[in-house]
Amino acid sequence: MKNEKAIVLFSGGQDSTTCLFWAKKEFKEVEAVCFSYGQRHSREIEIAKAIAEKSNTPITVIDASVIANLAPNSLTHHEIEVDKEKKEEKLPNTFVPGRNMMFLTFVGAIAYAKKIKHLVTGVSQADYSGYPDCRENFIQSINQTLNLAMEADFVIHTPLMFLNKREVWQLSDELGVLDIVKNETLTCYNGIIADGCGECPACTLRKKGLEEYIKSK
Amino acid sequence: MKNEKAIVLFSGGQDSTTCLFWAKKEFKEVEAVCFSYGQRHSREIEIAKAIAEKSNTPITVIDASVIANLAPNSLTHHEIEVDKEKKEEKLPNTFVPGRNMMFLTFVGAIAYAKKIKHLVTGVSQADYSGYPDCRENFIQSINQTLNLAMEADFVIHTPLMFLNKREVWQLSDELGVLDIVKNETLTCYNGIIADGCGECPACTLRKKGLEEYIKSK
Repeated sequence: MKNEKAIVLFSGGQDSTTCLFWAKKEFKEVEAVCFSYGQRHSREIEIAKAIAEKSNTPITVIDASVIANLAPNSLTHHEIEVDKEKKEEKLPNTFVPGRNMMFLTFVGAIAYAKKIKHLVTGVSQADYSGYPDCRENFIQSINQTLNLAMEADFVIHTPLMFLNKREVWQLSDELGVLDIVKNETLTCYNGIIADGCGECPACTLRKKGLEEYIKSK
Repeated sequence: MKNEKAIVLFSGGQDSTTCLFWAKKEFKEVEAVCFSYGQRHSREIEIAKAIAEKSNTPITVIDASVIANLAPNSLTHHEIEVDKEKKEEKLPNTFVPGRNMMFLTFVGAIAYAKKIKHLVTGVSQADYSGYPDCRENFIQSINQTLNLAMEADFVIHTPLMFLNKREVWQLSDELGVLDIVKNETLTCYNGIIADGCGECPACTLRKKGLEEYIKSK
């Protein structure tokens, strides 16, 4: 794929940052697309821009605030408290219905206009978070739907699909960017960069994975 | 389906208006969703609201202007002239890449929040317009993708899928709303209500269908 172009769905978090550097190794030209949609922490966007600039990656920020107007959830409606613990048998209240489907459709439209074939997203079904739109069967389905919708031949790449958090840390280390990912990304639901609040589900998962990776080295 | 609820993707044009009245016959409760996305003729939205009010249908207008920012095309970028005649072997420049995919995803998110199962859209592959996201294979694919994305069991209904324009007029007549559709809808690319400009591809198709239907009665 060395001679082709790719667009990375980029949020400035651990996963999409790892994907960005993965893509920069795999493709000739890479650009990033970041979505603004009333996240709890619009700081996410500043962090994404900073990482893009540092890595010399063109970045487009798309105002996707429509998402916040479609259905209530805790990531876009600030009066709802984030679930601290995952409830059994129920989608977490951080689930924004259709979010990845919208993001991939938006990015598909951008890629169509720019004649770019490869789309890269950091979704993973390994550390199962309860989000159905992170799974392999969803990605395969939307890849086909996108190609039918636009008569296109997009390929959606999900380099993290079957990696747990320990393995995502390992990948960033192999790509030579573990320090950047550790110190400059934002994953925390409470908006704290790097090691985060240490308490929300995202921080807990991230921290556990890093500890396991460091132990295994 | 008499006891269930449905959401109709509604633009105030001939096709979606016919679908609205079809749905009102088929379902217990019907609501309409209309998208504002920088159409050439924002009058579309006023017309949609008027038809919804007249038919006692709750309507939600969603600001989907993100669509206009993703890729250039003549329906959302006013400096590009609409193709008068269909070119062979090329998508018309009125094609907004991914538009129906975005609309159906947005409506899916709304329906998910409201626990509504049935989605109705007026797409048709009979009078083939060159839009790949109006075809049956696309609809089947996005139905599956939506259900995977949201762990849902949506059913997308496309009552016009295999009807040509003559048959769409016939359906509106059978539903007892031919006059409303003829006099109160906006299909014309140049923004003229009812019989329209008579020259754009949408008017030509609409007029030809109506003449054929009247002749066949």
